[in-house]
This record gives sequence, C-alpha cells and structure tokens, in this order.
Amino acid sequence: MTGETEETIFTWGAPPLKFGAGAADEIGFDLRQYDVHRVLVVTDPGVAATGIPQRVSENLKRFGIAAELYDRAHVEPTDESLVQAADAAADRGPWDGFVAVGGGSAIDTAKAVNLLTSRPGRLMDHVNKPVGAALPPDGPLAPLVAVPTTAGTGSESTAMCILDVLSMKVKTGISHWRLRPAMAVVDPLLTLGLPPEVTAAAGMDVVCHALESYTARSYTDFPRKQPEQRVTYCGSNPVSDLWCEKALALIAGSLRRAVHDGSTDLQARSDMMLAATFAGMGFGNAGVHLPHANAYPVAGMVTDHFPPGYPSDEPMVPHGQAVSLTAPEAFRFTYPAAPDRHLRAAELLAPGHGSTDDAERLPAALTALMRDIGMPNGIGAVGFGEGDVPQLVEGTMKQQRLLATSPREVDEESAARVLTGSISIW
Amino acid sequence: MTGETEETIFTWGAPPLKFGAGAADEIGFDLRQYDVHRVLVVTDPGVAATGIPQRVSENLKRFGIAAELYDRAHVEPTDESLVQAADAAADRGPWDGFVAVGGGSAIDTAKAVNLLTSRPGRLMDHVNKPVGAALPPDGPLAPLVAVPTTAGTGSESTAMCILDVLSMKVKTGISHWRLRPAMAVVDPLLTLGLPPEVTAAAGMDVVCHALESYTARSYTDFPRKQPEQRVTYCGSNPVSDLWCEKALALIAGSLRRAVHDGSTDLQARSDMMLAATFAGMGFGNAGVHLPHANAYPVAGMVTDHFPPGYPSDEPMVPHGQAVSLTAPEAFRFTYPAAPDRHLRAAELLAPGHGSTDDAERLPAALTALMRDIGMPNGIGAVGFGEGDVPQLVEGTMKQQRLLATSPREVDEESAARVLTGSISIW
Repeated sequence: MTGETEETIFTWGAPPLKFGAGAADEIGFDLRQYDVHRVLVVTDPGVAATGIPQRVSENLKRFGIAAELYDRAHVEPTDESLVQAADAAADRGPWDGFVAVGGGSAIDTAKAVNLLTSRPGRLMDHVNKPVGAALPPDGPLAPLVAVPTTAGTGSESTAMCILDVLSMKVKTGISHWRLRPAMAVVDPLLTLGLPPEVTAAAGMDVVCHALESYTARSYTDFPRKQPEQRVTYCGSNPVSDLWCEKALALIAGSLRRAVHDGSTDLQARSDMMLAATFAGMGFGNAGVHLPHANAYPVAGMVTDHFPPGYPSDEPMVPHGQAVSLTAPEAFRFTYPAAPDRHLRAAELLAPGHGSTDDAERLPAALTALMRDIGMPNGIGAVGFGEGDVPQLVEGTMKQQRLLATSPREVDEESAARVLTGSISIW
Repeated sequence: MTGETEETIFTWGAPPLKFGAGAADEIGFDLRQYDVHRVLVVTDPGVAATGIPQRVSENLKRFGIAAELYDRAHVEPTDESLVQAADAAADRGPWDGFVAVGGGSAIDTAKAVNLLTSRPGRLMDHVNKPVGAALPPDGPLAPLVAVPTTAGTGSESTAMCILDVLSMKVKTGISHWRLRPAMAVVDPLLTLGLPPEVTAAAGMDVVCHALESYTARSYTDFPRKQPEQRVTYCGSNPVSDLWCEKALALIAGSLRRAVHDGSTDLQARSDMMLAATFAGMGFGNAGVHLPHANAYPVAGMVTDHFPPGYPSDEPMVPHGQAVSLTAPEAFRFTYPAAPDRHLRAAELLAPGHGSTDDAERLPAALTALMRDIGMPNGIGAVGFGEGDVPQLVEGTMKQQRLLATSPREVDEESAARVLTGSISIW
C-alpha cells in the first residue's frame, strides 16, 4: 500500500458509564435528565425469572417514571423476534425512553425496538449490506439505558445489534452510532446469582472480544476512506488497544474466581463486569474476527448439545462457548501476522507463564483457562466431527464483514484447518 | 468510614473521537449527521492568525454548511468575555451547531456560547457554587465539535468550562455533562507549527492532568452520594486510571521530541495529541488537585513575566507553566498518602530511571523532564518570592473544589510549604 492510500484516521465512541454496586437503583434519576416519563423495560424470560427487571421497574417509579415490562426478548434475536418486539412495543407505546436489562439478546432487542419505534422505516432497511439496505436512522432515537446482567456481551457499550435473518439463514447486524445506549449502567451486584456455567461462557466471550480486537488488523492497514465510508468497526487502534489490554489484565485476575466463587466474591464479579464493559469499549470500535466468524455456524448448526446452567428446551451452544471453542486454533493461525500482539495478549492473560514456543503462548494461555473454568473440549464436545467441517466452513466464509478484520487472510482451506484443529483442543 | 457510607459508584463519560492526520477536514460530514446547517466557528485571535479556523470553515462549506467565524475568544476566558461572545453569537444567530478551534480558551468559550444561546438563563445561573447557582441546563444544547490546536488542555474531552469571575477575583467553572462536545476531532497536523515553548507548556499541562488525576483521592474514599449529588469530578477510578496510565506512557516517549523536533516529527506530535486527549478522558472525570489549585493564583498574580513564544502585550504565566511549577513539590507532599500510585506514575513517566529514595522518584522524573524541555525553574523564575507566598496561599485555598480531590489534606501551612519549596526547583 502506498502512503497516499493508507488510512490515517480512526474513530471511537462509548456511552457514558455509571459503574458500581447499587448503580442499577439510580436509573430513574438518570433517565429524568433526559426528560423521560414513560419507559419500556426490555428483557428476556430467563432474566425476568430473576426478578431483576421488575426491581429496576419499581425503582423507576420512585423517580416518577411510568415503566412497563416486555419480557419476551428472544435469546439470540432473529428478524422475526425483533419485529415482534417492536410491534408489541408500538402497540403499547408511545415510549420516550427504554431500559434494557439482560445479556446481549435483551440489549440488542431494545436497540432494535428503539430504532423501529423512534423512526420510520423497517428492520431490513437498516440491516447491514448485502442482507439489508444499511440505511442510517434518519434522526435521533429515544434514550436507551443498558443494564447488563452478565459479564459477557459488552453490548451496553456498542453501537451494534446482532440478529439472525431466518429466511436467509445468516447472522448479521445493524450497525450505527445512533444505536449506542445513552448510558451503560453496570452493577456487579446483578451478577452474583449467575450459575458457574453461565459465568464461564460469558467470561469467554469477554476474553474473545478483547483478544480478537487486540489482534485485529490495524486501522492503518485499510485503504483510505472517505468520511461517508467510515464504519463502526475500524480495526485495532490506540484507543481500543488500551481497553482490551486492561480487560485482559482484569480477566487474568478474576475469571477463575468469578466462576468458582461467584456467589460470594464480589471483587471478582466487579472486575469481570469492568472487563466486559472495557472489552465492549474496545471491540465495539475495533471489531472481532475469526473466532466470532466461526461461532455463528457452530451455534447455528447445533443439534444435540444441552449445556448445564442453560434452558433445556432446545439444543444450544452458548455464544461464549461458541466463540471460544475455535479460539486457540484461530490464534495459532493468526500468530504469524502479528506475533508481538499475540505475545503481549498472552502475557496479559497468563502473566509469567512462558511457553518454550512463542507461537504457542496464546493458545496455551487460552487452553489452560478454558480447562480451569470447564469449557467443552472443542467443537467435538458440542457435537461436531470432521464430516461437519465443510458446512461449518461455508458458514464461516459468510462472515466476510468479520473476516475482513482478521490480521491474516482467511480462505476456505485455512478456515477448514482451524475448524478441524478445534474438534478437540487438549 | 464505615462500609455503609463508602461510595461504591463512579461515573465516566467521553465524547466520540475522530483522531488522525486529516480528521479536521471531515467535520462537515460529521456535523451533517446531526442535521446541522449553520455553524459558528469559535476561535481566538492567535489561532485565527494561523489560518486553521478559516480552513475548517471552508471545509464545512464543502458539505453544504454555512459557517461564520468568531475570532475574539479571550485567552483565559472571563465572565465578561464569555457573555460578550455569547451576545455576539446571539446577534448573528441562530446557529444549529458550533465548532471550536483552538486551545482550552477557544473550546471553553464555545461551550459557554453554546449553553447561553441554546437554552434560557444567564452565565452565573450555571457557574459552580458558591460563586454561581450551579443550575443544570434545562435541556439539550446544540452539537459542538471541538478541534484542539494544542496538545494540552484536553478540553475537547471534558464537560467543564473554566473562567475567571472578574468581580470576585476567582477562577471557577461550569460543570455539566451537557457541556461535553458532541465530538472531539483531534488532528495532529494542526500542531506541527506550534513553537517549542508552547509545545512544552501545553505538554506540561497534559503531564499534570495525568499525574493529578492518577494520584487523586479515590472515588471510594468519598462519602456515599445520592444520584442528584454526583459531580463530574468523582475521584480516581478504574476508567480514569487507564487513560492516565496510557497518557503518561505516551508522554514519556514523545514530549521531549515534540518540543525539540516538533515541525518534522509527526509521530511525536501524534502521540502528544493522543496523550492530551487521553488525559482529558481521565482527569475530566477524576479531577485534578494541588498543582492546578496553585496554578490559579500563580497565573492570576503575575506582574512581569513575558514568556517567549506567547503574545507580548501583557504579562502572563502560560497555564501549562503555572500548573507544573509547583508540581514536583506538590507530589513530594502528597506521596505519603498514596506511595504506590506515585511510584507507578514515576515509572511510566521515566521508565527505568530509579532513584534511591522512593519518595523522590516522581519529583525527580518531573524535574528532569521540565529541565529538558525548558520550563522555568520554579515560581521564582516567573517573578514570585517568599514575600508573595501568603497571598498565593490565599488563592490556592480558594480552590476547595480541587483541593477536595487531593489524596492528602491541604491546609494553609502545607500549601505555604509547597509554594515556598517551589520558588526554585533545581
């Protein structure tokens, strides 16, 4: 690339943050700053069963805000579930604000509901190309306060809404800065009751957010863009780097403790909540790559995995499991493209645990962590064999938007090698 | 303090950032996202003489935005200068957006102009208590894009506007999240022409922002607040820490180069611009303390210092000089309250340069840097002697809002000791 065509500019954005034990009790005050009086609280059935969204709603009333609950957000949102949620919201509206309480599914559903009830237009108008028309919202949305109940997704920080478009069997998203929550309220007390299996899987999502965006292709390695061509995911950059580095350091000190002593170790829960939010502040601007691209077909093609700690009514690979199961092999593949970054990430994730082979340090750090917190041993452990690899590769290669951020070019052959090498990890 | 009254919550916010060489040429596109059509570009006479604000205005027109220039922002804004700027803006308005081009004076003037022309109310309604009534704006302001032309103030990141209230001879501010710019556009190309003296002084402002907020009293050491009592400066916290740490590391590698080779070393200029913005993202939420509190009387009482590189029509101590001249002695004083933080800061600022005495490491790192970049040797070098100390102490003690963030309690006697010890530094 010549000097004239190299990119010199990066962009970065994050919501205002209120963090700490008890932060979720103040949301009514924060929403009143935006002159909000009637709020829809969006959550999913599992989170609703904890009573947390109801407590948040009650607290809103203390500040003179009328609040109603929508508790049918679909885990892993689809185009149908988002339209259904938006229609239900419109029927009971109008709303001048939204609160999302839950994991990525609830928060992403609230983002879509906010978009579709605040502005004219239909869902597919806004979905990323080539699936949708990628039209920007034509003006401001209502204020959305995002309240994560897991230390995982980081969706409270990002300007993305991820969905499955059922008719096309593809995972894609809506991506625009106006989707970013008006505020992220991150209260570690909300996570004390999470089962160890959920803590572990969500934690591995944080690990992969931080590792993938830290090793993502640099923003300077993309061709120079015109202002109207700039995208939310601009590649790794000095700002996303600092969030990811700190997230990895927090994970190193707290993920094992949060999994094994999560009902009492508030410090570990607090550090993991910070790590999840920090990783969101990073990857939400830099982007993720191969492990996330692999996760979509792995989660989408599951037929008979019923993980403990999750609802047992349908087979599933939790997102945090799906992203991590191919991560050690993926980072083995991307290592030659950015050895220094892989080494630094390994040092942050497993300080002082040197391996004799530099290329193995990050896969080794990841594998040790995954074993310690009870992750399945590869995609074989969630039901996939060598015969499934070609179809998985097809799904991975559909994620061109993510693969574009990989530091090393991914073709069908290399994707197949990574997936085959991930059938069993240790 | 008991467990029941300790604070557990911190808040943090930052504007969206567009960073890099050429970023200032895209502002028109960014403002169009906010449906802006008629913009006032606010700057000061010195910056106007560089032609940069005019270039920004021309570029706005390429995107169909009408732009006019207000080039009379007062260096070190006063209540009078802000009201004058707001009146001038109102006369030529209405405006649906603002662009500030310059250092802290231009950006803070634009914040006040935006506040006073977007909402009803008068300046003193919004000024911090006890000087003003500290009323919040009663609704949203117009979008303000802040374009710093020095690597110093960090005002592009903060929700503060600093001003002198002339009748009361006091430096105070307006502080509310709605004052935060809608976007910070940070373009290191704009700083290539800065003289070494200005680069050095502005750079020392960045150093002090990072050091003071990194060593500030922790948010957990304040009494528990109700939501309506939360303030912009909440004490050091995990988010402000990460920005400050990174700012110090960037300064260590680039400030000397930016001063000595600033017209050609774009990498050093770029790193200092990042450092200034990062420090703003930190101190703008954590707060600053004793060196900034001392800076106000030092700058305010000057009678005969005419620094090279600055306008020679009136005596002045540039803000970055004023904050740094008492910093070595101030950190010698605060060291016992937070030894680990002072040591870590010293290590970031001067990696590997150990001193035999831990308490001396940060003062030594600061002093070495100040000598290398040509800072005056203490407040004696800008005209103050022992006889001035009582009056300087009086000015310092007026800054109770800043002193509240000091990790060690400051009384008149300790303030006098720090100021006396700063008459000559080396």
